[in-house]
Amino acid sequence: MDRPSATRELFQGRWLQVVEETWPGVGAWEIVRPADAAAVLARTPDGDVLLVRQFRPAAGRALLEIPAGLLDMDGESPVACATRELVEETGFRHISIEPLAVVFPSPGAWGERIHLFEAETTSEPDGDPEDGIELVRLPFDEVVAEARAGRIEDAKTALALLLSASRGVGG
Amino acid sequence: MDRPSATRELFQGRWLQVVEETWPGVGAWEIVRPADAAAVLARTPDGDVLLVRQFRPAAGRALLEIPAGLLDMDGESPVACATRELVEETGFRHISIEPLAVVFPSPGAWGERIHLFEAETTSEPDGDPEDGIELVRLPFDEVVAEARAGRIEDAKTALALLLSASRGVGG
Repeated sequence: MDRPSATRELFQGRWLQVVEETWPGVGAWEIVRPADAAAVLARTPDGDVLLVRQFRPAAGRALLEIPAGLLDMDGESPVACATRELVEETGFRHISIEPLAVVFPSPGAWGERIHLFEAETTSEPDGDPEDGIELVRLPFDEVVAEARAGRIEDAKTALALLLSASRGVGG
Repeated sequence: MDRPSATRELFQGRWLQVVEETWPGVGAWEIVRPADAAAVLARTPDGDVLLVRQFRPAAGRALLEIPAGLLDMDGESPVACATRELVEETGFRHISIEPLAVVFPSPGAWGERIHLFEAETTSEPDGDPEDGIELVRLPFDEVVAEARAGRIEDAKTALALLLSASRGVGG
């Protein structure tokens, strides 16, 4: 049961597509089918986390997040997307990168999966962040404390921080 | 800058609404505006977590999640929604409940916020789970280990588990 018995397009916009899927025994559901995404918790050799602050229309304000982007280029793998977004959004290049998890951010009606990675980067950037993006470089422990206190509002960022911290501590 | 300068409805379905919002300095974005949600990490007095397994059309299969639901009833508060969903989805009632965090699951184009809570419940349920929902009762430490290993696919569930575990440990 991994394919709907019927699919009907309800809306096709510039970026978003809404479909009605009928699943056996479940019925008809409206679902948004965006591209999947990749995101990377990147740390410098001196233990800083590279975060980006940018205005998010869906939130109505700027949020502090790990670098991330959509898998909307043909054939691009999640890890290639994560390392590309890291360079584009922060100017830093990765030295090593490992998967953390693959998660559904809101599996009721939002069909996105996010591929989460953890990377070590060079000490200094090769270039500047993209326009509209502010690079925020902070000590890892400080940002993890913010996440534990519930003050990181972006779910993928909070989750990547807590996953990384719990593994580093011995889990 | 917390309101768009223009909003245009692009699609109105049975449950989902897609709008185009124009933000000063940012431009026009397609955004889905679902209702916000509440979710609750519920533990019994003997240290079990109450999870629910249900088929999720957006994921194309069943996922293991903490009880959750939409704030789609007029005037219902997030905490009232969380405790109502706990009873409806598991049959257990809360004894105490505390906020964990409020997060944006995917702030690019999905305008949902999830209110995460942590609750203590009664030892035994008052009733049965809703149709289509399987109650899964597991030791807290075992489920946290699954989350740390990246094997909990629902982001809000993994995040709530790691938040709760990191606070219990002394953070």
